[in-house]
Order: sequence, then structure tokens, then C-alpha cells
Amino acid sequence: MNADSTEANGAAPLVIFTPSGKRGRVPAGTSVLEAARLLGVDLDSVCGGRGICSKCQVQPAFGSFPKHGVTVAEDALSPVNEVEARYDRIRGLKAGRRLGCQARILGDVVIDVPPESQVHRQVVRKAADARPISMDPATHLRYVEVAEPDMHAPSGDRERLLAALAEQWGLAGAELAGGLLPVLQPRLRAGDWKVTCAVHKDHTDDAPQITQIWPGFVEGTPYGLAIDVGSTTIAAHLCDLATGSVAASAGVMNPQIRFGEDLMSRVSYAMMNPGGAAAMTAAVRGAIDELAETLVAEAQVPADRVLEAVFVCNPVMHHLLLGIDPVELGQAPFALATSDAVRGTAAELGLRALPASARVYVLPCIAGHVGADAAAVALAEEPWNSDELVLIVDVGTNAEIQLGDRTRVLACSSPTGPAFEGAQISSGQRAAPGAIERVRIDPETKEPRFRVIGCDLWSDEPGFAEATAATGITGICGSGIIEAVAEMRLAGLVDGSGLIGSAAETGTARAIPEGRTNAYLLHEGADGRRILVTQGDIRAIQLAKSALYAGARLLMDQFGTDHVDRVVLAGAFGAHISPLHAMVLGMIPDCPLDKVTSAGNAAGTGARIALCNRAARAEIERRVREIQKVETAVEPRFQEHFVAANAIPHATDPFPHLGAAVRLPDVAFGAAAQAGGRRRRRAARSGRT
Amino acid sequence: MNADSTEANGAAPLVIFTPSGKRGRVPAGTSVLEAARLLGVDLDSVCGGRGICSKCQVQPAFGSFPKHGVTVAEDALSPVNEVEARYDRIRGLKAGRRLGCQARILGDVVIDVPPESQVHRQVVRKAADARPISMDPATHLRYVEVAEPDMHAPSGDRERLLAALAEQWGLAGAELAGGLLPVLQPRLRAGDWKVTCAVHKDHTDDAPQITQIWPGFVEGTPYGLAIDVGSTTIAAHLCDLATGSVAASAGVMNPQIRFGEDLMSRVSYAMMNPGGAAAMTAAVRGAIDELAETLVAEAQVPADRVLEAVFVCNPVMHHLLLGIDPVELGQAPFALATSDAVRGTAAELGLRALPASARVYVLPCIAGHVGADAAAVALAEEPWNSDELVLIVDVGTNAEIQLGDRTRVLACSSPTGPAFEGAQISSGQRAAPGAIERVRIDPETKEPRFRVIGCDLWSDEPGFAEATAATGITGICGSGIIEAVAEMRLAGLVDGSGLIGSAAETGTARAIPEGRTNAYLLHEGADGRRILVTQGDIRAIQLAKSALYAGARLLMDQFGTDHVDRVVLAGAFGAHISPLHAMVLGMIPDCPLDKVTSAGNAAGTGARIALCNRAARAEIERRVREIQKVETAVEPRFQEHFVAANAIPHATDPFPHLGAAVRLPDVAFGAAAQAGGRRRRRAARSGRT
Repeated sequence: MNADSTEANGAAPLVIFTPSGKRGRVPAGTSVLEAARLLGVDLDSVCGGRGICSKCQVQPAFGSFPKHGVTVAEDALSPVNEVEARYDRIRGLKAGRRLGCQARILGDVVIDVPPESQVHRQVVRKAADARPISMDPATHLRYVEVAEPDMHAPSGDRERLLAALAEQWGLAGAELAGGLLPVLQPRLRAGDWKVTCAVHKDHTDDAPQITQIWPGFVEGTPYGLAIDVGSTTIAAHLCDLATGSVAASAGVMNPQIRFGEDLMSRVSYAMMNPGGAAAMTAAVRGAIDELAETLVAEAQVPADRVLEAVFVCNPVMHHLLLGIDPVELGQAPFALATSDAVRGTAAELGLRALPASARVYVLPCIAGHVGADAAAVALAEEPWNSDELVLIVDVGTNAEIQLGDRTRVLACSSPTGPAFEGAQISSGQRAAPGAIERVRIDPETKEPRFRVIGCDLWSDEPGFAEATAATGITGICGSGIIEAVAEMRLAGLVDGSGLIGSAAETGTARAIPEGRTNAYLLHEGADGRRILVTQGDIRAIQLAKSALYAGARLLMDQFGTDHVDRVVLAGAFGAHISPLHAMVLGMIPDCPLDKVTSAGNAAGTGARIALCNRAARAEIERRVREIQKVETAVEPRFQEHFVAANAIPHATDPFPHLGAAVRLPDVAFGAAAQAGGRRRRRAARSGRT
Repeated sequence: MNADSTEANGAAPLVIFTPSGKRGRVPAGTSVLEAARLLGVDLDSVCGGRGICSKCQVQPAFGSFPKHGVTVAEDALSPVNEVEARYDRIRGLKAGRRLGCQARILGDVVIDVPPESQVHRQVVRKAADARPISMDPATHLRYVEVAEPDMHAPSGDRERLLAALAEQWGLAGAELAGGLLPVLQPRLRAGDWKVTCAVHKDHTDDAPQITQIWPGFVEGTPYGLAIDVGSTTIAAHLCDLATGSVAASAGVMNPQIRFGEDLMSRVSYAMMNPGGAAAMTAAVRGAIDELAETLVAEAQVPADRVLEAVFVCNPVMHHLLLGIDPVELGQAPFALATSDAVRGTAAELGLRALPASARVYVLPCIAGHVGADAAAVALAEEPWNSDELVLIVDVGTNAEIQLGDRTRVLACSSPTGPAFEGAQISSGQRAAPGAIERVRIDPETKEPRFRVIGCDLWSDEPGFAEATAATGITGICGSGIIEAVAEMRLAGLVDGSGLIGSAAETGTARAIPEGRTNAYLLHEGADGRRILVTQGDIRAIQLAKSALYAGARLLMDQFGTDHVDRVVLAGAFGAHISPLHAMVLGMIPDCPLDKVTSAGNAAGTGARIALCNRAARAEIERRVREIQKVETAVEPRFQEHFVAANAIPHATDPFPHLGAAVRLPDVAFGAAAQAGGRRRRRAARSGRT
């Protein structure tokens, strides 16, 4: 390898970059930044090599490197120059670091590019979201020095700015966002012909576009919003587009709730009320504006730095966000106005909190019932890269279900209704402080204990009453009702058909009669206010879980399998469901319990990935086309699975893994036969047999 | 040539298209429309070959064609089919005509494409504008049949529409204008999955864009507006984008006049008043909206058919139209915010009378004082194609002057002020009914006769008083004052320095004293109201014509010439100037009188050319960069020429052609020496020596 050595052959200096391992010879005197560009090494720069931004910091290594076959002399780089010395004096340069734009290569050298100097660095997500996001954002800041106007060779300021970008950044064919024409002249002059531009170049063939201009050199980074527009809540992350880090997160209720709690009631509202869709569009856009303002204020980020927004949402929210009447989504064949990704500007989307030229990207939809939120979940979980057959369930008002592995991916939507979110439950409420979120019932005494949101103690621990005095115990949220029903089943309070036993049948005074059925008293407050799990609550959960299970089974049928290797529960709600309880209820197909994991807010994660990585946008657009869509509404087998799944598992077959984990009491209560008859009649009426 | 014959070699049929002369063999059974596409023959179609639109009508020729080397048998085309027969029954087909999409080629054939079936047909302009415009518009109507949604293979309506356009029209990579997403679904369904799209594809690399959708097949053509935004008036033509014909023309006063009469007073208004520029932008956009509504109503064209607008304007109007503060145009170095063409949408330009997705094209500017209007004049006059050295003068508040030939073109702007438009003239007024527009003065009697706008009679003809009773004789317009001053010079009422002689000196009682100078009484009404040409009027005209002449001379200096071969007077005003009188005044350099022509409203013509022809847009963008700009404000020679040109020619040198045409009286009035002294002092004060 010594043949490589410069001294041996008198050639141009050899430069080796780590950690990439890229190497090549460059003319003596080449700057490290230029060498990186020549060799395709990922070395950041905002100021374009003027010693201003310090983004191009590198760490040269000296001495003998047998592995690389070079020996690096102390004079392999030019001495620290005045620009670097001044930078070190004013802002401080770590020991051994050099500015890549100033240090010139004079001899063979090994140069390390530290992670913070890489454009395409990987960012480790916080907390549960541990998978790294690889950075390749569409928006970068570019500092340019623009030629001053010359009346003897007149040309527009726009034309000289674009020429400077082409010359100094190789950004040929760039365009200036139309809305910036009015501010161009004052900003160029305020910056004395030096400006920092935000330049957007996405994954398409579209020309690079200047989406913001600031006078002079701008210290800092561009920001973007990753926004998940749900039926109930709108959640957003404000992300640093250079590092991918989340500067602030917040959520608001979707104000469309006043037009209808669930999706179909909003579609109905649009159908029945002239201007209804437009009113809902205005409401959701207004809420997004407020959310953006909140985030910007909280993170103390200048609003003019927020230059991208990526949206994920279900199809109805998607249409209303884009100003499209969702009426077609309410009836077969559930035709989307558009399924591909939508690209535009904040102005086009009617968002006022962002700069008008900020770029908007809406992820593609998979099908009329499987939206951009499901696409985002897929982007976060990448079932197409899974060796195991993975079932991904995003539980919300509708459940979006995906099943697949490296060979293929299937997707469907299942109409679970809002029970899993605590709606249509007698004591149900949203997940908020005071809501019961976890429940345990002693199989012997049938006595419950529980935890409420906002308090880390269980209800039977000392200090619980004091700790919850402020919020009170106000109701039961989605994860709480699931655990309650599953625990009632495990404690023998509910039989396999879903009937609650009477006090006599169960031997506890907590089983109290309510009309012709029974209810279980979970909690009675000092004021006599009761939190019950009623027979109606159990039925609501049964309907919801049957729909979810039937959707999963339908995909398994289509895939040609009767088992899955692992299950991922996505959605904010998924993070709070206990895998054991989900399986006791029969929500998900049988699977080893340790193979059931939560992906947290996978849709939000997918939105952040699309925000931070252009290639991810290209990938999800391609993958969405390849995903096989299954429409539950017209599949007779879906109805069969739905009816068959109504029972709460009471046998270990087809749940062998569940059977290995728990013992399900073999109880059957008096009215079971009668209730079964009711169920069959109801199924017959709704054509679901 | 008979080797070509099909019978001779048993090959596929030979088809020869006229008038293009394009020829080639196609498989037997190929439709004439398909054959035209295969051979690159310009044959129109909107319905894409479905026998609906009739745009593809052709005229086959039968018999022996020695020139082409073929003999065409009667059965060379398939017989008239049911689609053609029905079309003929319902709408009528000219004798011998066939529908190109229905007639199939079975043998050698000669097919004529009549002009109305050619997309790129040439349109002869009306009246004075006799040069044909070659049609190659950016917007075409395309009829497509879109696949219906299939819930088992879900895709968006947008995606199926774009697929249909790609498949049925070869328009790959087209995009749907964002604003049309909300209307896409209802229109597709209203048309039973058949729609007509307006597709815009301009001269750039930008993807084709759908800018309008109508249910079903739309009979008719798209329209566009060619708009000349002048400082005083805004003029627009509504043009049929298929034929290029003008459906309606109208003009309105520019409402910005209330902010300042001339350009510089508007720039001052913007500088002195916060929000002043925005107010002027709103005013001009509002006027354009009103104008568009007027034209659409007058031509009875549906507003949703008006899908393009091309703008030409001077730099200040250009900036205010685009919402840019023109402050930089008011001071050296007169930097334009943008000099290249601007492309956008009606929504981006804040125009409400056009569909939001209608495309806007603003021609490029040449320099800070030579705007898109001058570029449009260049596009209309094409000096770069002139063998003779041509001087093009667009006279308005500023005069834009271009000089060139095939070798190169120079341009400058000259600050003539508004005198040529009748402003700053004692009895001056806009060109409107009642204004004196032509003047003759008898050299012997010194008696005037004149014509007023709105009446074809001269003032000394019988019936003139009756014919002008309605309007009255209200003042004198720009062309009128020029003729009046020139006639006064020719009649010996004014000397070479521009002084009006007294009654004693001129021998006419029409020379009346006014203060320390004299005036000429052009007309005195029955009510005693006088229309005078005062000494001040003469001075104003002298200043204006000096500026114009000096600009032309400066360009001639730069070009290295002391003569021009021909002169073109552009501008609405140019159409009314008599070449002789312009030369008597010394407005333009000496030139044979028959080589001075009017180009009418050349800026408007240029706007129409750019509207109707994409290649013209590419050409003017390229030419504008090549034109050499000369800045009069900083050229010492301009000031020299300006001062030297103040006199009204009284010698035949340097005006030999003028001298050959007229005799200029050799008069000099009493106060001449004194006036000359005043002029010199004034010039010294303003640094113009």
C-alpha cells in the first residue's frame, strides 16, 4: 500500500476522510472543504467556505497509519490562519479542530469528519422512538454574496441572486418563490449584498426553490413541522431541520369535533350542510395555525425559520385539510380525490402562521379508508424490511391494519368505532388527568385496584386519595376500559360470551344489577359518584375488538397465513395497551406475548422521518403504490370474522400463546343462552351472517 | 419516383400531407390523425380522436399526382363511417372533408390539412397590424376519458386523470393545479368520467399543468388576455388562444393616477407614504380585474375560459403590478427587483377576475428604465431581423428607444415627460372626443384649420360646427400639439429658437400677447373659450422632443453611425403622429419621410404575440439579454445632445431629407437673444452643459 504514498511517487497529496473511508488525490493547496466536495464526502457548510459558519469543522490526524498506508506529517495542512484564529478567539474551536474551508492540504493527510459536521448525520430519537432518523432534509440554509447592480450592465436583483447561488453553491436553475419578490430588494440591501437563503430541493425533479431570505449571515438552522391531524387531536413536532431534534411538541383538540365526533358524522355534516366542508377546512387550518404559533413561541424559534410542514392524516382529515369535500369517502367506492403525495406552499394551504412560501408535503394515502397516517406508520415501521411477518395495528376511531414482510405488504381499515378511545362507554372519557388508565382485579376477592392519569400510585397504596384529590377520579379512558374488561374476564366476573355475572354468580357485592343486566362497580367516590363497567360497555368493547380482530384475520387470509410472528401496536393509544390484556380480549391474533410491542406515536414518527429525509418521501410514495389494499366493507369474510370474533376468548385454541400465559376461568352466566340468541338476531338483522 | 409507389413494392401505404409536404409509410388501417402524429404533421384535435371535436378535419385528394409520384385511388381511405355521417347530419361537414380521427388510410393518399385544422396556423392581424402571428399557444383543451374508481385497486381521481392524459395525449408528468383539487371530484362525476382539461405547457422545462377542468366535452377554445399596463391607461385584448383572433379590446385609465401623474411622482409617493406601494398595487390590480370582467362580458366568453394573461409594462408599473416597491427604480443604479420574465398564477398576482389557476406571464424587462413594454415592442418589430438600421421609438411619458439591425440592438429610455401626451400643455388633454388631434396653418394667411377626435371633418368644412356640437372642442391632445407647433414653425409663427412672434412680427391678429411672451390663438368658441398655443407649451414640447432626439442620437453614437435607414413610431400615440411634423420639430433624426412608419400599439401587439406563441417567449427572454443597454442618466453625451437639440430645426443640415421636403422659414423674433441667454443660464444651473 505504500505505493500510494505521495513521497514514493511525487504525486498530488493523498487525502483520506474518516469515517467514510473515501480517499483520493487532490492538488496541493486544495482546501479540505473543496477536497470533500471533489471526493463526495459529506461535509456541511452554510457560508460556502467563507470561514463564517463553522459547520465544516474537521479533525485532522497525524502520525503513521499503516491501515491507510500513509504517514501524516505535522505540516500536511496549512498552518492555522487568521480566519481560524479569529473564529477560535471569538467562538472557540475544539482542540485539534480546523475549519475545513480554511485548512489547505499540502501533504498526505487523514481527516475525520465529526458527526456534527456531517449533513446526512443520523439522529437518535428520544425515549421510545429509539430508531435513528437519517438526515437528508429538503431545506438548507445557503449564504451567498450577490453582485451589486450595475447600471451599465443592468440585470435584476433576482437574477444576480440566482447567479450567485449557481456559482457559489452549484444550484443551477433555482427559482425564487414568487412571494419573496417584494422583500428581495430591501433584504439584499440590508445585508449589504450578503444574504442567507433557505433553499428547498425535494425528491422530485422540481427546480430548487428559495423559500426565505435573510440579510447577512444567519446563525442557526431551518425548522419544520411534522403534523399528525387526527380526528380527535392534532399533534405537531417542531423539528430542527439540520439535526432532526425536536424543539417542541404540542397537541390541540381538533375543533372539527363540533361538527361531528367521528369521521362519518363529519362526512354527513358536509353532505347535509352547504358550506359544511369549507367550515371544517377553516376550523382545522385555524387550529394548525394556533398550534404552529404555540410551538414557535415555546421553542423561541423565529416564525420565519419554519419553512416546511409535513402532514399525515386519515383520508377524511386529509381531504378537509386540502379543502376537498370528503363526500366521496362516505360511500362506495370510497374514491380519494388524490392518493399521491401533495406538495404545495403554506399560502396554497391557507396557513397563516407559516411564511407564505414555506413548503408543505402531505404524505400519500394508501386507500379510501387507509390514509396518509397509515402511510406514515408504514414509513416508521418499514414492514417491507421485516424478515418476520409483522402485523401493525394503529388503533384509533378506525383501526388501520398492515400485515407484511419483505415479500409483500397488505393493508386495510377496520371500523372499530370510538369505544377504544373511551367514547360510547358509560363512564368513558378522553385520556386526561383523573381518568382511570390501568386496572387490576384480584381473582379471589374480586376487588379492584387502579391507577389514574396524573398519579403514579395505585389506588390501594397509601397517599393515593391525597394525590388524586386535585383531579378527582373522573372516568375511565380507552386503555382503562380494555384492562377493566380483560381483568373482569380473568377474575371470572365476565364469561366468554361477554356477560357480567350477578352478585350471586360471582360472589361479590361489586356485581350490581342494572336494568336486566349487571354492572361491575369499579369505584365509588366519597360523593357517591360511581364508576361502573356496564353490560353495554362490554358490548361496545366487544364490537370494537371484533372489528379489529376481523380486519387482522382478513389480511391473514389474503396473505395465506394463520399466524403472525409479531404484532406492533401503534398510535398514542397503542402505547398504553397492555399486550396481555389486548390478547385476553381477543383484540389481536395470538402471538408470543414478548412479540407484541408498542411503536408509540408511529404516525408522528413517520411524519418526522418524511420531514427530515427526502429519500423517505420517495420511498413511501413508491411503497404506497405497492401495498396491496383490502377493502373490508365489501369482503364477506370480514363479516364472518367479525361475528366469529364477538366472544371473549375462553378456550386456549386459537390462542395457544395466550393459554400458556394465563388461565381463563371457565364460567358461564345465567343469561348466556338468551344473550347469544340476541346476538344472533342482531347479526341477522344487519346482514352480518 | 414511382419506386415510391405502394403497388410497385407492395409496401405499407404512402401518405403525403400538404401543405407541409411531410410524407411517410404507415400501416394500412392507420387513422389520418395517427398518421399525422407519426409523421409530425400539425393536425389539431381536442377530443383525442373520438369524433367529437371535428378539429382534425382534412381534405383528401384523389387522382394522379406526378409531383408526388403517387396515384390516389377512390378507396385510398376507408368509407365515411357512422361517426362522420352523424357529425355531418348534426353539424355539417364541408364537401370532401373527412374527420382525420375516423378516416383510415388503406392506400397511397395525399391529404391536405386546411388552415383551420392546423394548431400552429398563422393569423393575420387586423387593420394596421398586418404582420401574421404564428400560433403556438401554451394552453390547449384536451378531452379525456378517465377510469372510474375501483375500491379493489384504490387510487385517487387525480391520479387516474393524469394517467388518462398521459395515455390519451402523451402528456406524461402533468400536474393538476393545486386549486383544482377541490373541484376535481364533482366535475369528473358531472361529466360521467369524461372531462375537458385546459393544459398549460409553456416554453420552459416546467411540467404540463392542468389549469381548468370542465365536465364532458367542451366546445370552443381557451382565451387569454394581452394586457399593456401603461402609466396613464391600461389596455387589454381578449384573444382566442386557438385562432389568435381578438374577441374584444378595451382600455381603462390607470387608477394610480390619483397617486401621481407620472412614474417618478408615483415612486415618490411610495417613498413618502408607508403602504403607498401596496395601495398602488391594489389599485392597478383592481383595474385589471374590472377590465377583464368588461372584456369577458363584451365578448360573451365564460370567465372560466380565460386561462392566461400576458403583461407588458414599464419597469415602475411592472414592479407595482408584482407588488414590489419601486423605490429602487427612482435612484441610481435603477436596480430592477427582477429583469427576467415572471411566471405565476392569477392567484399569486392577486387577480380575482380570472380563475385562480390561470397562468400569468410578464415579459422580461430590458433595463431599469426600459421595461417589459419595450421588450414587447421589440418582439413586435424584431429589429434583430432587420437588414436596415432601424430606430424604434415608443413615445409615452418616457420614450423607449431601440436602435439596431441584424448585427446588434441597443436600447435606452429618455425622460420626455408627459408633454407628448397633452399634459403640462395649457389647453392640453387626453386623446378623447372633442380634442384637437390634427392642425394645419396656412403659411400665407396664418389661419388654422383642425380636426377633433370623433369627427371626420376639418374645421373649415361645411357641417363641422354641427358635427362637433355634441362633444364641443375641449382642448388639444398630444398629436395635436405636435402638429400645431410644427405647423406654427412652417408658417413662420415660431422661429428656430422656439419663440412665438408678436402680431407685428407675424402679421396676424392670432398672435396675441400673454404676459411677456406671445401665444397663438388656435380656436375661440362661441362662449369665448380660447384654445391657445402658448410660449410655455412650445417650451414643454421643446424639452420633450430634445430628450427624445438626444436619446436617439446617443444610441447612434454608441452604434457608431450618424444616420438611420428607417424610423418606426410605436405607441398608441405614435400611430397619430405625422412623420413630417415629427421631423419638422426635430423629434427624430433625419430620415427619408417614406421610411418613417407607425407600428401602432406595438407593445400591445408584442403582448399578443407572447400570448399566442411560446417560442416568442423564449425568443424575447434570450434577445433581452443580448440587447445592449445604454443608461441616459449618466451619459454626459446625452446632456450634450439634449442641449443641442433644444432648437427647432431651421437649417437643412443635419436634416437633409427634411430640407428636401419642406421649406423652413428663416425667421427670428425680437426676444430670441434674451431667451437664448435664459436657456443657457438654466442649463448651467441644472448641470446640463
